[in-house]
Amino acid sequence: MGVELHKDLLGNIGVDVERHAKMMGAGLEAYKAGFMSQPNRPKAMAYFDWFMSEIQGERIAEINALRAAKKPAVGTFCIFVPEEIVTGAGGACYGLCGGSNATVADAETELPRNICPLIKSAHGFKLQRTCAYTQSSDFIYGETTCEAKKKTWEILNKHHPVHVMNIPHMKREKDLKMWQEEIKEFKEHIEEVTEKKLSLEEMLNGVKIINAKRAALQRLDALRGMNPKVMPISGKDALFITQMGFLDDPVRYTKKVNELCDELELRVQEGVSVFPANTPRIMVLGTPLAPPNWKLHTAVEGTGGAIINEESCIGHRYYKDNVDVEGVQNEDELYARLMERYSKIDCACFTPNTGRTEKIIQMYKDRKADGVIYYTLSFCHTYNVESYLVTEALAKEGIPCLVIESDYSPEDAGQIKTRVEAFLESISFKQKAQAFANK
Amino acid sequence: MGVELHKDLLGNIGVDVERHAKMMGAGLEAYKAGFMSQPNRPKAMAYFDWFMSEIQGERIAEINALRAAKKPAVGTFCIFVPEEIVTGAGGACYGLCGGSNATVADAETELPRNICPLIKSAHGFKLQRTCAYTQSSDFIYGETTCEAKKKTWEILNKHHPVHVMNIPHMKREKDLKMWQEEIKEFKEHIEEVTEKKLSLEEMLNGVKIINAKRAALQRLDALRGMNPKVMPISGKDALFITQMGFLDDPVRYTKKVNELCDELELRVQEGVSVFPANTPRIMVLGTPLAPPNWKLHTAVEGTGGAIINEESCIGHRYYKDNVDVEGVQNEDELYARLMERYSKIDCACFTPNTGRTEKIIQMYKDRKADGVIYYTLSFCHTYNVESYLVTEALAKEGIPCLVIESDYSPEDAGQIKTRVEAFLESISFKQKAQAFANK
Repeated sequence: MGVELHKDLLGNIGVDVERHAKMMGAGLEAYKAGFMSQPNRPKAMAYFDWFMSEIQGERIAEINALRAAKKPAVGTFCIFVPEEIVTGAGGACYGLCGGSNATVADAETELPRNICPLIKSAHGFKLQRTCAYTQSSDFIYGETTCEAKKKTWEILNKHHPVHVMNIPHMKREKDLKMWQEEIKEFKEHIEEVTEKKLSLEEMLNGVKIINAKRAALQRLDALRGMNPKVMPISGKDALFITQMGFLDDPVRYTKKVNELCDELELRVQEGVSVFPANTPRIMVLGTPLAPPNWKLHTAVEGTGGAIINEESCIGHRYYKDNVDVEGVQNEDELYARLMERYSKIDCACFTPNTGRTEKIIQMYKDRKADGVIYYTLSFCHTYNVESYLVTEALAKEGIPCLVIESDYSPEDAGQIKTRVEAFLESISFKQKAQAFANK
Repeated sequence: MGVELHKDLLGNIGVDVERHAKMMGAGLEAYKAGFMSQPNRPKAMAYFDWFMSEIQGERIAEINALRAAKKPAVGTFCIFVPEEIVTGAGGACYGLCGGSNATVADAETELPRNICPLIKSAHGFKLQRTCAYTQSSDFIYGETTCEAKKKTWEILNKHHPVHVMNIPHMKREKDLKMWQEEIKEFKEHIEEVTEKKLSLEEMLNGVKIINAKRAALQRLDALRGMNPKVMPISGKDALFITQMGFLDDPVRYTKKVNELCDELELRVQEGVSVFPANTPRIMVLGTPLAPPNWKLHTAVEGTGGAIINEESCIGHRYYKDNVDVEGVQNEDELYARLMERYSKIDCACFTPNTGRTEKIIQMYKDRKADGVIYYTLSFCHTYNVESYLVTEALAKEGIPCLVIESDYSPEDAGQIKTRVEAFLESISFKQKAQAFANK
């Protein structure tokens, strides 16, 4: 596998090669057991299976080839990063490792136990030097969206350069103006790293590439969730594909997602579903599920449900909006359009964030879903507090909802499975009662 | 007691009078047992004992008399509120109830369990209608300093009007500029509430009053903590006085604090200490201790230590800086000076916040303290994550440090006492070893 072939490179960028190889081996085994064993998978998943085998092998070699050619390599933890700019500079912009429990104990030597597992996991990867993406980064792109991250950057910065963007927490005109300046400064920082001016044309090209990636993911989202009678791909596979969108080369990835969508379109036409009829169709709301955090999807799809959407940062929130560059004449206009697009992200860090609730209800109706699971990573105050207002609105609409708060430890897997089972049963019962009533 | 006398008023402002009376009765009993029983208290504490008995009686009547005269009454949860402006308008600006465990269970019907107890307690007071300050408020002044508060305002706003100020989390020039605008908007909001223009002279008068209050507290801080051989007042009493500074009329309060300081000055001259010689002198760092949260001071001073300072928002962070209005000619200049003063607050919400660590070490040296306790309210991510960098710096200086994270439940009182005892013993041992070495 890729990791073996690239041992020297991994060593050169400071990866703890032995520990890393063990971790990647275990990850690949988990993937094989959990994903490749699924029946009736689309053929086009073969590419994503390959990518998984090269996730920290060939892909890392590609990123480091870009770096050797003086292109930027930027690691991120948030979808507020204007990846269009990095892509326009010919570089790689990717999400850093942060979904594993295996690094949490190390992180807890420097961080409190009771903060979000994603942050702890990511910090632990740096301390362990077991994430080749982190090791490949010219800098880590931090932001102020959540306070545990915001304060962790100060500690992480001792181990790796961190550049922090101040994301406002309101969306008044003056906040957006400030935000636009932050985007411009981010571009200037990229120029500093590459020691090269970045032109408007290059940035517009970056927008084109990332718009195409998001369009492909929107297409996947529709094929996966908008056909109540045919679900041509499992939620698990769709989540995995979305997760890989944060790591892969965007042009290749877009092509492969579109190829998969072509196959899924045929499946929809032919009525080929990977789930039996009447499988409860569940929307997932909330915080991101970073690989290899597949716990929730495993629980739902292992107990007779199907996940048709993730209203999360690794999901719909990431790809729902494109940048409109129609008529853009200069850099400032482009920054304004980028800001316009990024400020549509309905992260719970904003106050107020009422648009999110309305969007969720619309998504639910559009997809003719059967229920939602509001998922928050433990100690994520923003999504956690916001869940009260969202679930209150869902209750008013009569939408079945289960709230789950979980970290990366395997300990609550059984409890989650039991709760999900009961939730799915209640939905099935409701469906049957409805069918009788309609007779 | 005051509460009984003002039953009608309390009922009129929506207080649950019966429940409130019980709660206030219990609070006063706890105060009598914990504070009034202390030996050798300064005579001038009589005023603060009286204030405690009228804390939600006569003082509430005063505030509501102001309201009747169309003056603003603003409840707050944060020291970023420019109280100078409310005071300038002739109104009352006060901290809302948020230090009691008795309201937490109610709050948890709308808020997650795993957020800061102060927020839950405050929200619960509103749901229970057992805080006469909350009930007296024209509006609650919220801010975006911490995310659990920021998101709670959205829910609290359903029960009481909340006005939110966006506090930036960085202190770059552009952030400070935005901050200044927020101060101006706050003033305009006060004008809306009172339906009356607020003049520069009135605001300058407000600054004068609040500057005097802070100067009195600085004086108390010095008398209490800067004389290693004489500690003329207990830490518990000094904390209580500081807490009352968030509730009392500022002019009367300032006069009473200064009268107390006159007495303490005499005590210092005469060597009258409320602690035996060689009592370990402890500085408390971290999050605010809102009344009746006296758990930490009770633990420390009940086991042979003395608390000489609170580097906290209900403490040094609140009163350390005054507003310099020298030469101010117009309103914009005043807002700039207010912003300048408020941006000196080294809240952990800022990134970076390195100045805080340097300040702590300087405070420690100035006070010839013997150790510090870094105290955080449970789930306060900012102070909690920042504790790593602060305690690392303290360790480099060889400063003994104990980290305590706690909520309002009585359950960990025993454990905290045991940990504090061990900490104080280790300090005493070190002192004795030092004394032998110096012989």
